Amino acid sequence: MSDLREALLRDLPDIRLLTAPAELEHYGRDWTRRWNPAPLAIALPADTSEVQQLVRWAARHQVCVVPSGGRTGLSGGAVAAHGELVISLDRMRQVLAFDAAARLLTVQPGLPLQAVHEAAAGHGLIYPVDFAARGSCSIGGNIATNAGGIRVIRYGNTREWVAGLKVVTAKGELLDLNRGLVKNSSGYDLRHLMIGSEGTLGIVVEATLRLTDPPPPSQVMLLALPDMAALMQVFELFQHRLPLQAFEFFTDVALRHVLAHGASRALDGDYPYYAVCEFDAATEAAEEVALQAFEKAMEQGWLLDGVLAQSEAQAAALWRLREGITESLAPYQPYKNDVSVRISAVPAFLADMQDLLGREYPHIEVVWFGHIGDGNLHINVLRPADMAAEDFIGQCERVTKLLAATLQRHGGSISAEHGIGLVKRDYLGSTRSAAEIALMQGIRRAFDPDGLLNPGKLF
Amino acid sequence: MSDLREALLRDLPDIRLLTAPAELEHYGRDWTRRWNPAPLAIALPADTSEVQQLVRWAARHQVCVVPSGGRTGLSGGAVAAHGELVISLDRMRQVLAFDAAARLLTVQPGLPLQAVHEAAAGHGLIYPVDFAARGSCSIGGNIATNAGGIRVIRYGNTREWVAGLKVVTAKGELLDLNRGLVKNSSGYDLRHLMIGSEGTLGIVVEATLRLTDPPPPSQVMLLALPDMAALMQVFELFQHRLPLQAFEFFTDVALRHVLAHGASRALDGDYPYYAVCEFDAATEAAEEVALQAFEKAMEQGWLLDGVLAQSEAQAAALWRLREGITESLAPYQPYKNDVSVRISAVPAFLADMQDLLGREYPHIEVVWFGHIGDGNLHINVLRPADMAAEDFIGQCERVTKLLAATLQRHGGSISAEHGIGLVKRDYLGSTRSAAEIALMQGIRRAFDPDGLLNPGKLF
Ligand SMILES: Cc1cc2nc3c(=O)[nH]c(=O)nc-3n(C[C@H](O)[C@H](O)[C@H](O)COP(=O)(O)OP(=O)(O)OC[C@H]3O[C@@H](n4cnc5c(N)ncnc54)[C@H](O)[C@@H]3O)c2cc1C
Ligand SMILES: Cc1cc2nc3c(=O)[nH]c(=O)nc-3n(C[C@H](O)[C@H](O)[C@H](O)COP(=O)(O)OP(=O)(O)OC[C@H]3O[C@@H](n4cnc5c(N)ncnc54)[C@H](O)[C@@H]3O)c2cc1C
Repeated sequence: MSDLREALLRDLPDIRLLTAPAELEHYGRDWTRRWNPAPLAIALPADTSEVQQLVRWAARHQVCVVPSGGRTGLSGGAVAAHGELVISLDRMRQVLAFDAAARLLTVQPGLPLQAVHEAAAGHGLIYPVDFAARGSCSIGGNIATNAGGIRVIRYGNTREWVAGLKVVTAKGELLDLNRGLVKNSSGYDLRHLMIGSEGTLGIVVEATLRLTDPPPPSQVMLLALPDMAALMQVFELFQHRLPLQAFEFFTDVALRHVLAHGASRALDGDYPYYAVCEFDAATEAAEEVALQAFEKAMEQGWLLDGVLAQSEAQAAALWRLREGITESLAPYQPYKNDVSVRISAVPAFLADMQDLLGREYPHIEVVWFGHIGDGNLHINVLRPADMAAEDFIGQCERVTKLLAATLQRHGGSISAEHGIGLVKRDYLGSTRSAAEIALMQGIRRAFDPDGLLNPGKLF
Repeated sequence: MSDLREALLRDLPDIRLLTAPAELEHYGRDWTRRWNPAPLAIALPADTSEVQQLVRWAARHQVCVVPSGGRTGLSGGAVAAHGELVISLDRMRQVLAFDAAARLLTVQPGLPLQAVHEAAAGHGLIYPVDFAARGSCSIGGNIATNAGGIRVIRYGNTREWVAGLKVVTAKGELLDLNRGLVKNSSGYDLRHLMIGSEGTLGIVVEATLRLTDPPPPSQVMLLALPDMAALMQVFELFQHRLPLQAFEFFTDVALRHVLAHGASRALDGDYPYYAVCEFDAATEAAEEVALQAFEKAMEQGWLLDGVLAQSEAQAAALWRLREGITESLAPYQPYKNDVSVRISAVPAFLADMQDLLGREYPHIEVVWFGHIGDGNLHINVLRPADMAAEDFIGQCERVTKLLAATLQRHGGSISAEHGIGLVKRDYLGSTRSAAEIALMQGIRRAFDPDGLLNPGKLF
């Protein structure tokens, strides 16, 4: 056992530590599985004070720290591959308080997103950020990546819903940021700086979340479409006519994977593109409007087929076709791009992107899907069985460079919602200028002069 | 004429400069009128490139810069009292672009808020941040203070509506932040850092604003109430039952001033407290619900009287009773506090605050009003005619210290929406911890190592 590990066990005997090889491996990586986990140890603090003690210990010994949530991250942000101390928030998963008048829920960072949903529902309200990893991702990780998901067109990203944060800094200080205030124009909003900072500026140890009224009862539709131009037409039409909660698309290739993974077919034919769409439908009149929009789209040739869920079970089955994709692809350890452009730039960007992917991945399967209403596409590249992992990643990185240049031309972003982490670090310069990166480095130094928090991540 | 001023005229002959004493005085102050304006010169750049040239010139000569908008600020943020170069964005007031699919309006920073409203309306949409200074404040100033206003309970603060910012830094570099993207998890969100930074981190030279659908037709009510407890009850009842757009309160003292300033009486009797309330009322059913809520509040004794506007003109007249207050008090050069607590903390805070104001300002008129639904109160202290300005400010500062301590106990903020500027600088520590302030200083140094941007403001 290393000297450092012994010192840690000796200095902080009351804090739960894991050091067995299987545990180091388990907690040392996220969904990327590209790097070999090699943490110093895994600490599982029980409360804020233990987080502070751990960070202070790490600062004293100049040991780097990796904050770790549900490790469902897709950018390697929670990977510990260089002897870091992993501070996992796994055991800090309590609901701490509910403020009825202000509609604020205060929780610990390790609470899974789904448990946040359940706590909100217990008060007749909702926390509206949602996506397929809900059962295993943590609210702290969501905040650290400014997670988006499937309801962004209605509710925005995680950022919109954070009214206060408690954060332990690299020095072990505890910041109490914004404290749930609606209005607070008193200097720089460090809460917003923290959101999306991927564990590089501090460790979120408590979050105060805004809740809101549940939406009216909704309906779910699966749509089949001939091409991306039609998808954009249908989205525009539906957005204009229906109170959309979600509008998610995927390709035939994605559908094939999710069906092979156990989902059930919802339409008889095979079509190039699909969309799952959910909208408020409290009244028959609202349903009528939806059917009219559907018929108009059919007449225009923008839609080839479609089905409206007749039960909650069927709605869940339709959603599974979209939400099961990431999991169905996991065995292939896909190389992922998560890009966005302005919605108005989507058509032009898509044309360039399809050209690029067709040209550069001629014999490689590419699965794409995403949150089209936010201008956000996920591109998953699957490694052919006969290609070495290293060659595959090399090729993907080369294409990502070209994709980054395409994005830059269209004013887009190399990371829409997964974060930069390790995976997209080399491409940050396509989305942020040299001047911006220099300022970000300056901010990071101000927060963490010794560079101990999640080094190598982001930049 | 000073050497520096001559150098400026010589080095940048093509940029419009004002140096006449009346102009220096006019552009060197904001609504506070507490400091004697003494700027070096007023620059009125025509475009971004001229802003960059000015900042670079200032950096070369180590001259401090004060970014300046409509100068309706109430915290002294745009005051130039120490030979600074004022960079006024007054001439940069064009609407630059409208993106229909993404519903984004791109404007120059000097555009008045009201002109933003008009540009949005031209596209059938709204920019929902609104308050009485709309005709003279600038969108750049709104962003720099994260302005709130009268629609925050429905729409949030300025922050919510900024999708992109172009900013000139202290070095003269041009940052293009977020570019209107809905999703962009690619490092620290410098856009949000800029919002509310009061001209200390950069000069906003372009803003891309989110627009939204206009609300349904609305109704406006004036309510008369016996006490603050009843106000809180009525607010809760109305918030529960009506789709509120605004819920603003003021006292009898405020009403007296605004009536003396030319507004017309709307109720016969005199009451201690009033609220102006606006809510969606597209249908007769919605109006019926509002009347029922009103009756319930009357029965409970929470309301003493009220009136529902019967025309747009009457609605405007009711609004004037609330919106005319700040202007009606201006001749007194009031000392202003602008404080907030969580809505759930309002009752307890109010009790302490009323005690404090009654005790500490025994013979001084105090006018208060505000955005009660956001937990935001404005306290205006009027100088008695027989008290010297200096003594008056001394006493107000002493009370503000006590108020700051009260706020701290209730988890509140010393600046809800006006910003810290010069006026509240000494009280920043009541809202932000020493660790937070140190981090803010670090950020400021990273952006502006020579401390040239709005020095002395904020901290
Ligand atoms: C099936 C599936 C579907 C997904 N769908 C979406 C989607 O629709 N939208 C989306 O945005 N993402 C999606 N993701 C990605 C992922 O779930 C999100 O990024 C999520 O927010 C990560 O949360 P986590 O707790 O797993 O974080 P982790 O992976 O543990 O960590 C992510 C980053 O946050 C940091 N971090 C974690 N906790 C803290 C803390 N308490 N304080 C400071 N830093 C911390 C880590 O250091 C790391 O940099 C999906 C992932 C999967 C597997
Ligand atoms: C009658 C009246 C009613 C008001 N009501 C409200 C209200 O309800 N809610 C509210 O929030 N405020 C209110 N205010 C305060 C004021 O109107 C706001 O603070 C407004 O946002 C200031 O805008 P401005 O253009 O006048 O800014 P200025 O006063 O010119 O400047 C304010 C600050 O912003 C900085 N700044 C200005 N432009 C830029 C730029 N382009 N780039 C960088 N920094 C810049 C300045 O340096 C200064 O620090 C009210 C004021 C009045 C007079």
